[in-house]
Amino acid sequence: MVFPHTAYCLLLTNGFPRCGGATIAAQNDKKLSLIPGFHAVRETFLKTPENLREVWVGVSRKGARAEEIARLGAEKGVPVQFKELREIEAVAPGAAHQGFVAFAETFSYTDLEDLIETSRQTPGGAILMVADHITDEGNLGALIRTAAFFGVNGLILPKDRSARITGKLLKRTSGAYASLPVAQVVNLGRTLDLLAEKGFWIIGAAGEAEESIYHFDWDRDVVLALGSESKGLSHSVRDRCHAFVKIPGSGQVESLNLSVAGGVILSEILRQRGSKGGREWGIS
Amino acid sequence: MVFPHTAYCLLLTNGFPRCGGATIAAQNDKKLSLIPGFHAVRETFLKTPENLREVWVGVSRKGARAEEIARLGAEKGVPVQFKELREIEAVAPGAAHQGFVAFAETFSYTDLEDLIETSRQTPGGAILMVADHITDEGNLGALIRTAAFFGVNGLILPKDRSARITGKLLKRTSGAYASLPVAQVVNLGRTLDLLAEKGFWIIGAAGEAEESIYHFDWDRDVVLALGSESKGLSHSVRDRCHAFVKIPGSGQVESLNLSVAGGVILSEILRQRGSKGGREWGIS
Repeated sequence: MVFPHTAYCLLLTNGFPRCGGATIAAQNDKKLSLIPGFHAVRETFLKTPENLREVWVGVSRKGARAEEIARLGAEKGVPVQFKELREIEAVAPGAAHQGFVAFAETFSYTDLEDLIETSRQTPGGAILMVADHITDEGNLGALIRTAAFFGVNGLILPKDRSARITGKLLKRTSGAYASLPVAQVVNLGRTLDLLAEKGFWIIGAAGEAEESIYHFDWDRDVVLALGSESKGLSHSVRDRCHAFVKIPGSGQVESLNLSVAGGVILSEILRQRGSKGGREWGIS
Repeated sequence: MVFPHTAYCLLLTNGFPRCGGATIAAQNDKKLSLIPGFHAVRETFLKTPENLREVWVGVSRKGARAEEIARLGAEKGVPVQFKELREIEAVAPGAAHQGFVAFAETFSYTDLEDLIETSRQTPGGAILMVADHITDEGNLGALIRTAAFFGVNGLILPKDRSARITGKLLKRTSGAYASLPVAQVVNLGRTLDLLAEKGFWIIGAAGEAEESIYHFDWDRDVVLALGSESKGLSHSVRDRCHAFVKIPGSGQVESLNLSVAGGVILSEILRQRGSKGGREWGIS
């Protein structure tokens, strides 16, 4: 059972879900899943506690199970509330909840084909971004926030060797995740082949590149590929890049933090497009 | 007793300080201070363990004191090494070390007047940066790294209501602190008055500004003032700004992380100067 929420805080502040179980197909929203039953709730505490937002326990449940859930809540910093059984029944009607329900955040990915089609309708050119094996949660969260600020059409993440999009990571984006569609793909190389076929230019950011981001002509549909600070771009991405660009620096410090590098390049893309009469954000 | 080290790692990798106590006046280097004596070492463990790099205990010291230091080292993640007394004597000659010495990192600030004079000799125009009451260590560390990457002449920090420059913060800059002079001032308002008198333009970054960073003419000596994400610029800084600029965004996300905003603006300053025939980093 899934409650997609745009303003899921309503649940936490008012103690009762407002959407009544209706499924609102908001793209890329954080979804609140309802997890009914003692064992399922306990399992979630043990495996992905970072996704848990709140747990309800029926007031009549005073035994060892209720105690265990209360203890896990205290340990993991998840609010555990005692509720009347009818309240639990109201949010999980007909479910075998045994007096235990948890609300967990799950992230809903956007379909790659949808992302491509939507982005190509952007006046002034599409901007997609590839985060190539960014395994650090903080870095990925900060990149999502930066990409959302600059209105990137979408982010493409590989399924393996990437930080998972957890509730904790979403929190680090300061709410920005809601305006950035994210597609998850199994094979990054094949995805880039597809994007190239569709007319996108694959541009890799690399410290050793010769072309400066200021001299590169960004007036085209682009996929900006960013690798990790320590390892750079992977071979399968590197082999598919049409060009590489670098951010000119003083040379005293080798590299920039991932989200800073992303922000600097996105800013330059939008500046160039704006100066050519295309869209420039926030300037009327 | 202070051992300023450029490559202090020599100490940690070879187990013996190479500078032999000589004072090398390297601007803005991280300095290794030597703290002799059981009580002084213990005090440092309790108050500023984040500054401790290594502790040496004389092999003949096997009692409760040595045990306490070893336990504190394990707790705080600081290496504690047992050494011959003559080795301790060699690094702390004549000191009342009682068989205990600690090596701690301290940061040496640059004099404001020196910073101003040196920066004004930069071909293409000076760039100074003011971090206006940035109390978060991680944010300040990331900003230092970004500023160093772009070759900013120096950073000015207020003494109060600012994150302290600790060993932990310096670590977060990934070594970049060594190439960015930092001046600490008691009164930020008076410092900006002085800078304005010297011909600097004080430019504040503000989300609500009307002028875009792309349209502003950066071809002058500038002080870029950045405030905290939550509070923005303080009144005393705001009152002294000659102009405010904003980074155009999609409007979906209100603000950027501090170091990302700093990086985006610095990149635009250097791009403009480069396009006018001034210096552009890394482009021959």
